[in-house]
Amino acid sequence: MSGKRIIAMSGGVGGAKLAEGLARNSNGTPLTLIVNTGDDFNHLGLHISPDIDTALYTLAGLANPETGWGRRDETWSFMQALEQLGGEAWFRLGDADLAMHVERTRRLAAGETLCDITADLASRLGILAQVLAMTDDQVRTRVGTDIGELDFQHYFVREQCRPQVSHIVFKGATAAQPAPQVIQALQSGEAEAIILCPSNPYLSIAPILAIPGMRELLRSAGVPVVAVSPLVGGAAVKGPTTKIMDELGLSVSALQIVEDYADLIDGFVLDSRDAHLRDRIDLPVAVTDTLMRTAHDRLRVANETLAFASSLYS
Amino acid sequence: MSGKRIIAMSGGVGGAKLAEGLARNSNGTPLTLIVNTGDDFNHLGLHISPDIDTALYTLAGLANPETGWGRRDETWSFMQALEQLGGEAWFRLGDADLAMHVERTRRLAAGETLCDITADLASRLGILAQVLAMTDDQVRTRVGTDIGELDFQHYFVREQCRPQVSHIVFKGATAAQPAPQVIQALQSGEAEAIILCPSNPYLSIAPILAIPGMRELLRSAGVPVVAVSPLVGGAAVKGPTTKIMDELGLSVSALQIVEDYADLIDGFVLDSRDAHLRDRIDLPVAVTDTLMRTAHDRLRVANETLAFASSLYS
Repeated sequence: MSGKRIIAMSGGVGGAKLAEGLARNSNGTPLTLIVNTGDDFNHLGLHISPDIDTALYTLAGLANPETGWGRRDETWSFMQALEQLGGEAWFRLGDADLAMHVERTRRLAAGETLCDITADLASRLGILAQVLAMTDDQVRTRVGTDIGELDFQHYFVREQCRPQVSHIVFKGATAAQPAPQVIQALQSGEAEAIILCPSNPYLSIAPILAIPGMRELLRSAGVPVVAVSPLVGGAAVKGPTTKIMDELGLSVSALQIVEDYADLIDGFVLDSRDAHLRDRIDLPVAVTDTLMRTAHDRLRVANETLAFASSLYS
Repeated sequence: MSGKRIIAMSGGVGGAKLAEGLARNSNGTPLTLIVNTGDDFNHLGLHISPDIDTALYTLAGLANPETGWGRRDETWSFMQALEQLGGEAWFRLGDADLAMHVERTRRLAAGETLCDITADLASRLGILAQVLAMTDDQVRTRVGTDIGELDFQHYFVREQCRPQVSHIVFKGATAAQPAPQVIQALQSGEAEAIILCPSNPYLSIAPILAIPGMRELLRSAGVPVVAVSPLVGGAAVKGPTTKIMDELGLSVSALQIVEDYADLIDGFVLDSRDAHLRDRIDLPVAVTDTLMRTAHDRLRVANETLAFASSLYS
């Protein structure tokens, strides 16, 4: 392999865990992580990028290990004071976490791009991986439900995924472009493998792939594209993946995910609890325990995924 | 006296202390406090109103007793995280304090007036006094110094009042109007006395008086206007009052302040340490210990000031 860089795509918690393992891969190959911004929203006048924040905190070792999102050792004085002032309190913003949103919002207003800001914040947090927003344009995931079409965070946090999902829209996606740094990374010829992290395919990876040109960029990189299953024993580790699959009329199975990624991937990493599905997948498959409870798990799944990708070079 | 309301004007810390005493006056007369907004500035994308915040925190019993500004029992996670992200850290924003700035900024962007927002925030903090921004328009105090003309907070906080002051400008004042609630309060016929709190006359009270029509509103209220000296034994309790007076070529004395307020006030409250100046003031004078160390001091100075104002009815 001549490549010099791993490229991964992720949404929030689950994806970020694998990304953190990939960043520490045993070959020392540097990582470029392309992060979903479809969950971004404006809240209290602040531009919040939940998946970028989770990626940054996770890669910087600052993530809250209990929740997977937000910062460890966080304080909550802002939220308490905001409630007293009658402000909206359904989206929990920790005091230290706020610095990210305030600084990002200020820099966006000053004309910097989301991708440039993200790169600089990553560097200031001591992150060696290149962390990229999928686009500098506005793409907003909206969830069609039995109580109307909701902003993603309204569905996900305020309504706690309770409404029944009928469809998902990535508003703005067709007019969006991949961020220049994303294009550069995928066209550089430096890629060694492209990994779709175990994030929700329909809510977290789909918005990235919905940007015109993104799929072509992935394919034309000419390197193995491997997806890691977000399902463990047919269930999601965290989040509404299976509930949404069911409500969208999809079969709740890794097979469905393979089918939906079919034209894009060269191989699939299946959780060992779903090993019985192996023979029904018409693609190279690696089977491993994908549950990442510890830092060691993350590194192991990352290394195994990279070794599998490497084996796919023909 | 037929009045039903005390009207006071103040800037930050020293003025807010008297305002807090006035709000608890022994006659139970309600207070309307008109607050300087010349110190307001946009910082990190947030609209910060330092004097309004000090007034609100002081009246709500939430002020930090050590500093006079900011909130008691504050945490500082935001500031620490912001510094890590490379953000500007010279203006210290506590975590709970941030809620005020974020919520105010959000509501201003949504089209509410500063005066309406301030009234609502005061009410949510359980403040019975009516707290008013002097204007809903933008007035910005700028300080001409030997290192150039500075925004007030840059002079006051970032440069810690070190530059030598040559002049002070209230940018926007001539085009500003008193807030409608200010006009209403002063024209209501309910005023019983108007008190200029012991804030810096040149930096904190002057911007209020610089708004066209404000002086006329005060005079036409037809009630005694009394200023409480911000000097105690010829020195300022806190802040750069005497340094600025000296640099502006003024004599550093309560006499100078009386002279500068001369066409506006009917009486002056002189600190007992400056009692020797009494005979040189050509106005009714009350002499008392104006130093407000305790809640009891505030109430006492407030009651004495109100009794003095009452004695000025002819």
